[in-house]
Amino acid sequence: MTLTGKLLIGQHAITGHREAIRGIDPATDAALEPAYFGGDAGQVGQTCALAEAAFDPYRETSVEQRAGFLDTIAQEIEALGDALIDRAMAETGLPRPRLLGERGRTCHQLRLFARTVRAGEWLDVRIDPAQPQRQPLPRADLRQRQVPVGPVAVFGASNFPLAFSVAGGDTASALAAGCPVVVKAHGAHPGTSELVGRAVARAVKACGLPEGVFSLLYGSGREVGIALVSDPRIKAVGFTGSRSGGLALCQAAQARPEPIPVYAEMSSINPVLLFPVALRNRGEALARGFVASLTLGAGQFCTNPGLVIAFKGPALDAFVADAAEHLQHSAAQTMLTPGIFSAFESSVNALAENALARIAAVGQRATGPNQCQAHLFVTDAVDFLADRRLQAEAFGAASLVVQCEDFDEIRQVTEHLEGQLTATLHLDDGDLEQARALLPTLERKAGRLLVNGWPTGVEVCDAMVHGGPFPATSDPRSTSVGTAAIQRFLRPVCYQDFPDALLPQALRQANPLGLRRLIDGQREA
Amino acid sequence: MTLTGKLLIGQHAITGHREAIRGIDPATDAALEPAYFGGDAGQVGQTCALAEAAFDPYRETSVEQRAGFLDTIAQEIEALGDALIDRAMAETGLPRPRLLGERGRTCHQLRLFARTVRAGEWLDVRIDPAQPQRQPLPRADLRQRQVPVGPVAVFGASNFPLAFSVAGGDTASALAAGCPVVVKAHGAHPGTSELVGRAVARAVKACGLPEGVFSLLYGSGREVGIALVSDPRIKAVGFTGSRSGGLALCQAAQARPEPIPVYAEMSSINPVLLFPVALRNRGEALARGFVASLTLGAGQFCTNPGLVIAFKGPALDAFVADAAEHLQHSAAQTMLTPGIFSAFESSVNALAENALARIAAVGQRATGPNQCQAHLFVTDAVDFLADRRLQAEAFGAASLVVQCEDFDEIRQVTEHLEGQLTATLHLDDGDLEQARALLPTLERKAGRLLVNGWPTGVEVCDAMVHGGPFPATSDPRSTSVGTAAIQRFLRPVCYQDFPDALLPQALRQANPLGLRRLIDGQREA
Repeated sequence: MTLTGKLLIGQHAITGHREAIRGIDPATDAALEPAYFGGDAGQVGQTCALAEAAFDPYRETSVEQRAGFLDTIAQEIEALGDALIDRAMAETGLPRPRLLGERGRTCHQLRLFARTVRAGEWLDVRIDPAQPQRQPLPRADLRQRQVPVGPVAVFGASNFPLAFSVAGGDTASALAAGCPVVVKAHGAHPGTSELVGRAVARAVKACGLPEGVFSLLYGSGREVGIALVSDPRIKAVGFTGSRSGGLALCQAAQARPEPIPVYAEMSSINPVLLFPVALRNRGEALARGFVASLTLGAGQFCTNPGLVIAFKGPALDAFVADAAEHLQHSAAQTMLTPGIFSAFESSVNALAENALARIAAVGQRATGPNQCQAHLFVTDAVDFLADRRLQAEAFGAASLVVQCEDFDEIRQVTEHLEGQLTATLHLDDGDLEQARALLPTLERKAGRLLVNGWPTGVEVCDAMVHGGPFPATSDPRSTSVGTAAIQRFLRPVCYQDFPDALLPQALRQANPLGLRRLIDGQREA
Repeated sequence: MTLTGKLLIGQHAITGHREAIRGIDPATDAALEPAYFGGDAGQVGQTCALAEAAFDPYRETSVEQRAGFLDTIAQEIEALGDALIDRAMAETGLPRPRLLGERGRTCHQLRLFARTVRAGEWLDVRIDPAQPQRQPLPRADLRQRQVPVGPVAVFGASNFPLAFSVAGGDTASALAAGCPVVVKAHGAHPGTSELVGRAVARAVKACGLPEGVFSLLYGSGREVGIALVSDPRIKAVGFTGSRSGGLALCQAAQARPEPIPVYAEMSSINPVLLFPVALRNRGEALARGFVASLTLGAGQFCTNPGLVIAFKGPALDAFVADAAEHLQHSAAQTMLTPGIFSAFESSVNALAENALARIAAVGQRATGPNQCQAHLFVTDAVDFLADRRLQAEAFGAASLVVQCEDFDEIRQVTEHLEGQLTATLHLDDGDLEQARALLPTLERKAGRLLVNGWPTGVEVCDAMVHGGPFPATSDPRSTSVGTAAIQRFLRPVCYQDFPDALLPQALRQANPLGLRRLIDGQREA
């Protein structure tokens, strides 16, 4: 499997017209072959034209064809074998077990969307039969289904080279909805992207689908990214990355003659609330679990616990001391890219220089390039409330403990938070009433609430919400992980008094897809 | 029921601090008492604070309490009796039967949302039970429900003083979702708005709800409208009106530190395609139906048929001649406001002066102020494709027939259309294949497709879609009519490993609300 360094425009491998990027091994700072030349505006346009041409035939595929396509992508990715894992390790510095797990997650995700497509609930079929005798006016026959919005642009994320990248959750959910996808590969793992992109392209061919169903572009966010989002044929955008990157795409999408939705998952510090009884009963175990979650994958998770909120006092002092002890022994870990490492250093230095926060502990020193040294800071609620910079995300293994004098301060700190992907509550029975009192606020602040766990595991399933109020995401009405993600790429269409022969399969009287329809207000059994 | 001319801030009637507006009887141009003084920024802030304070208690109401509240609003509106109809007639020029029908529709709509709240499907409960033994990692218990987004600002529409106004579809669906509502009354019917607003406020009180659940403001779009949309406590916006008005709100919503969704229903010319066999078989009946739909309510419907697309030839000539005959006899009708009348005159004059369109017929002359004289224009496909101004909406009884040389021109004209609320197909059996060939394009252009009907009736039901691609609306993933409108004001939250006692009712293991939940990928029977 020789890498070509080429754009994948439908089934065609084409060399980009712009300057080249190369993957970099963050463990050695060595540049990796081959060079990936960036696409230009013409190549973006050519790709979007192909996606547009594929839209009508692709969305007319049967539920079974589309599900089969998703299953085939999973098989093709698995068939890449060690070559994929080896390249991803070289490009990201992530360890093999993590990447094996991520590959499993990616393929599970594709198969879960295949199951979702087959189950058909996403079609949300609603039928209000005609009432020709109704007074004063007869009622027409009205039938609603969901249709795909059109070609979707997906931006690969740095921190999940497989599960949030070329064939990750955004791509899987858009393809499941019936939307062709154009991926802009993340510059941090171009070779991994090419391998997966070619696997998807093979699945397109094997399933006899129009080639424009999937393309993969390389290039700068400014040039290729903005051109993609601005192309009139693109109808929605999926993105996981920084706040500045996400907001730039939102702006470009709003500036179009026809604005389109951007689903950007941007930043979150994932507050963890330690309630007093739990903290007293099992502070040491909490400290151990906290540091494990904080340092997992060098802290490079969207759901990394970057904030701890608790009552000031001996129990919290003990927790901080225990956490500091664990953290001091935590090894430095190679970060994904030199850019991410340098941003982490800046964030940590800014906190270290902020007079309102003090350093409680730092992890082991780096032994190679781009290694993240874990940091734990402490501040008081009154200071946290006074300085918005204290809730800026430091992407990496850094966290801030906010000490509160009383429950009212805990409430104020919680109210003061920006929108979050997650909020975690550690509580024992005696804490239930305080937790209950905070729940309405926490529900308004976050997309997922956890009790007695750590936020860094994000299950791919029906009930997951990986989303949340701005700036955690640009659209809190959605999730980017789990099967509900398909809804981002659908819109309803109503068919009035259609002859049965002209209706789409999902709406025909005989119900050939076997759906549980909402008929005249009643859900079919 | 004496009108007070006051803002309704929760349960308090308060005089606005800004200049006054008065309702105007468009049939006489007479100003109506009382004066309604506009709110200022402080009063907008006060109202939003009240709405924010009401949010947590209101969203914690039970399904039955919330449904009962919607039913009570309907009763209170009915209890207004003739006073409401009389005032609405005076302020809008609409005839009594139309307003009686609209009141019925408004109350039906409130009761339909009450039924929807009770049925509970909007909660979209998904449960993935824990799998403690799973390898390599156990799965947590994950449960998802929908929660309301927060206080919603609703802008009343000019053309439906009841059904799209103070207690119209936007208000009903937001209240159903659990969101407090702040309405900005449309300046065209302030007295009607006050009557309905006081009815809603009485229902708030009768149901023992916090007063901030509903408020009603008067004032200019620039001052009160933009202040409302910019207030950080407002989390979503519903609007029906002009494209410029809708876009201004979208811009204000995007300019906030925390951008919020705006559901603006803006403009549509609702293309009607006359297929050849149908046109040949029943052209005369089609012409009669078309003119009836076009002139209904002086053409002041969002779904007014402003464009006809058909093959050039004798059958279309006969249709145009028949339509011209009917149209010439159609009486002039009083429009809603002097402003709408003058905008209609400008639109019609612009078309009349456009060398690419010719006038086929005009209706009866006006016999009083602000009366709409119906207009029918004809153009050729090649000219329609050349001049975007020909698809500008003329709000009122004006329509344009586009003559196409062949099917390819019909396809081009259809492809050239902006996003629409509706598209209508008149067809007989022999037209089915042509219609089928156009359906993919039409589905991409419109939210509702009709066969052999007219678009001006919009049923309030589960299957309705009153929405469509931009610029018909600002968000084609939604509808503003029908029960699916509730989804605009909801967002998902996931609860991980919650003790049962801390879970919201909808997610508890014993299923106290009797919902059909999605459990481990299976829908409960």
